[in-house]
Amino acid sequence: MCKNRVWKHVVKEGDSLVDATCGNGNDTLAMVKMVAEKSCRGRVYAMDVQKIALENTFSLLDEELSTDEKELVELFAICHCKMEEVVPTGVPVRLVAFNLGYLPGGDKTLVTTSETTLLALEAAKRILAPQGLISIVVYVGHPGGREEFETVRAFASELPVDNWICCNLQLLNRPLAPVLVFLFKR
Amino acid sequence: MCKNRVWKHVVKEGDSLVDATCGNGNDTLAMVKMVAEKSCRGRVYAMDVQKIALENTFSLLDEELSTDEKELVELFAICHCKMEEVVPTGVPVRLVAFNLGYLPGGDKTLVTTSETTLLALEAAKRILAPQGLISIVVYVGHPGGREEFETVRAFASELPVDNWICCNLQLLNRPLAPVLVFLFKR
Repeated sequence: MCKNRVWKHVVKEGDSLVDATCGNGNDTLAMVKMVAEKSCRGRVYAMDVQKIALENTFSLLDEELSTDEKELVELFAICHCKMEEVVPTGVPVRLVAFNLGYLPGGDKTLVTTSETTLLALEAAKRILAPQGLISIVVYVGHPGGREEFETVRAFASELPVDNWICCNLQLLNRPLAPVLVFLFKR
Repeated sequence: MCKNRVWKHVVKEGDSLVDATCGNGNDTLAMVKMVAEKSCRGRVYAMDVQKIALENTFSLLDEELSTDEKELVELFAICHCKMEEVVPTGVPVRLVAFNLGYLPGGDKTLVTTSETTLLALEAAKRILAPQGLISIVVYVGHPGGREEFETVRAFASELPVDNWICCNLQLLNRPLAPVLVFLFKR
């Protein structure tokens, strides 16, 4: 909930957004609702490596979106590290959202990895528009989760302070709860 | 700025608040503005151990507040660990705010310490109303700052998850920037 509030400070109707890990589609749905407007300029590019994730997302969008809204979203069966292959060149992306870890309700052994996550963060950095946001939810409770968080933290800590505001939000009395990381581009 | 937005989600007109470390008075001023209303029920109890801090706060309030608003605030020359001596018993306190470290623009060798900060946090926990907030800004760039943050973090991490939401907000690419810690009581 906190995450979506932050998104609303950044995203405007008509913006182009990337859901780098669409999972069960909840974020994709929220994104389409944020960018949808009369002129149908907004776009959401959503991707996942898992077929079941794309199916769940498709079902959710099919149920919750109007015909016009459905026109605004495209689903891709690719790794988030390849987002530049599906986002048209030159499109200013206002938000790239990541949900790292495993698919909620899915196979917990299928997880994002530090290696592709780092490549995906670098891609997100290249396509993000000024005043854009990279939003990352990092699950730290599964094997490899803590290591992946360290990869994200290292990436964020090296972004220049003149161009980026990088912060993380952690629950101090729930050490295994997901960590939110926000990278705001000036 | 982020901190004040969070406060506004918690504080209502007519509430009683504690500024545990009034410093130059900016937070005290913001607090009075948040609680002030026609019936003059709101109260802000502000304290500091440094005489210069209380003088700066008094000057700022004198300049920025109306006569009615000035009636809502009381300044005390005591340590934050003794807040229970100045807040009337039974008053439900909606917000206790801490700015740990040294007085901005003041003597950097005069700092809050882990020992009294821990006592003050325990006092704040006792007087806080349900749906209240303990807000802590921890400066980590001065000697002892990191240790004080660890004290705050340890305190927060032990609060029961059923009754408290404890989170911290850190700038990842500015490791010496102050850390925000919010302890929300359910």
